[in-house]
Amino acid sequence: MKLYDLELSGNCFKVRLFCALTQLPLEIYEVDYMGGEHKSDYFLGMNPLGQIPLFEDGDFLLRDSQAILVYLAQKHVLHDWWPQDAAAQAQVMQWLSFAANEIARGPNDARLHDLFGVELNVGLARERAEFCAAILDEHLSNNKWLVGSGPTIADIACYPYMALMHQGGVNAAPYLNLMRWMGDIRSLDGFVSMPGIE
Amino acid sequence: MKLYDLELSGNCFKVRLFCALTQLPLEIYEVDYMGGEHKSDYFLGMNPLGQIPLFEDGDFLLRDSQAILVYLAQKHVLHDWWPQDAAAQAQVMQWLSFAANEIARGPNDARLHDLFGVELNVGLARERAEFCAAILDEHLSNNKWLVGSGPTIADIACYPYMALMHQGGVNAAPYLNLMRWMGDIRSLDGFVSMPGIE
Repeated sequence: MKLYDLELSGNCFKVRLFCALTQLPLEIYEVDYMGGEHKSDYFLGMNPLGQIPLFEDGDFLLRDSQAILVYLAQKHVLHDWWPQDAAAQAQVMQWLSFAANEIARGPNDARLHDLFGVELNVGLARERAEFCAAILDEHLSNNKWLVGSGPTIADIACYPYMALMHQGGVNAAPYLNLMRWMGDIRSLDGFVSMPGIE
Repeated sequence: MKLYDLELSGNCFKVRLFCALTQLPLEIYEVDYMGGEHKSDYFLGMNPLGQIPLFEDGDFLLRDSQAILVYLAQKHVLHDWWPQDAAAQAQVMQWLSFAANEIARGPNDARLHDLFGVELNVGLARERAEFCAAILDEHLSNNKWLVGSGPTIADIACYPYMALMHQGGVNAAPYLNLMRWMGDIRSLDGFVSMPGIE
């Protein structure tokens, strides 16, 4: 299994972190992002969206960090991480959409602006980041993990850009339940980090 | 099963359409969107994001249109619509993320601007809508459905805002494979429509 990776990408980090936590072997291929490799013809032939992460398992190609988490958990029968019960699975899905939509438009966009110079409405992105933090903080006031009694791929999908939020100019410190949850993730056996996360 | 619904919402339409196609009974509760019911204390108590659709099955509450589709398909063992094979399920998931991210920021945002007066960068939203149309058109040039040999919840999640794209000022007509696919969806037994879709 091979990951077309960028070390600084929180989306790529989701895959690296999940494989580390579940002891799945993963070959890393570092994409030359600054050189525009992800927009090259050969890369667009594999992923027309021109996005990383891109994941390869034999001749099977898959884009999108959330989809890669679902693939790994479903293929390797990691049902604690990806519940098969309809209600629990749908609750995980709820947070996968939250990662793909609200977190992408919030802390991820704010960081893209501050760290990579992407032009966008950073004020709005920061407002949305605070909203994400508040929603998660409230949920985590009554729940140790996002869904059920242990970590799932919902936690893995939502964690990176919340932990990197400070790189978009938003401070997580006032959100005590969010801080506690991020600490719990860092305490998981096998946890690995990335630049920007202590 | 009850849907907190808005007739003009493409996200709510995903749920209505899927239940119609699979003959699942669904009680509709029309939320007073213009009156701000979705931002009322009682509604925020059920969905802190203040978004519709919201779905209720007994005392189980679920937000997010993609999560509701997963719930319905998983609960009712509709494996043609939500494959259990890891690769196929992950490919469906890829398009669920595409609906939650790219389509939400593209045709959905452009329509929010034009139809509901939401202030946002409509030029960028239209560019992204054209990008979504191009990506889908290319994929559908070699595939009758988004994943596998029949319709899945991926098709249901991506269809509404592509079919409503004209309400955001973007014309789908040049995208012939996209047009063919939208026609195939309209031809499914049990198809129901919504305002803005012929």
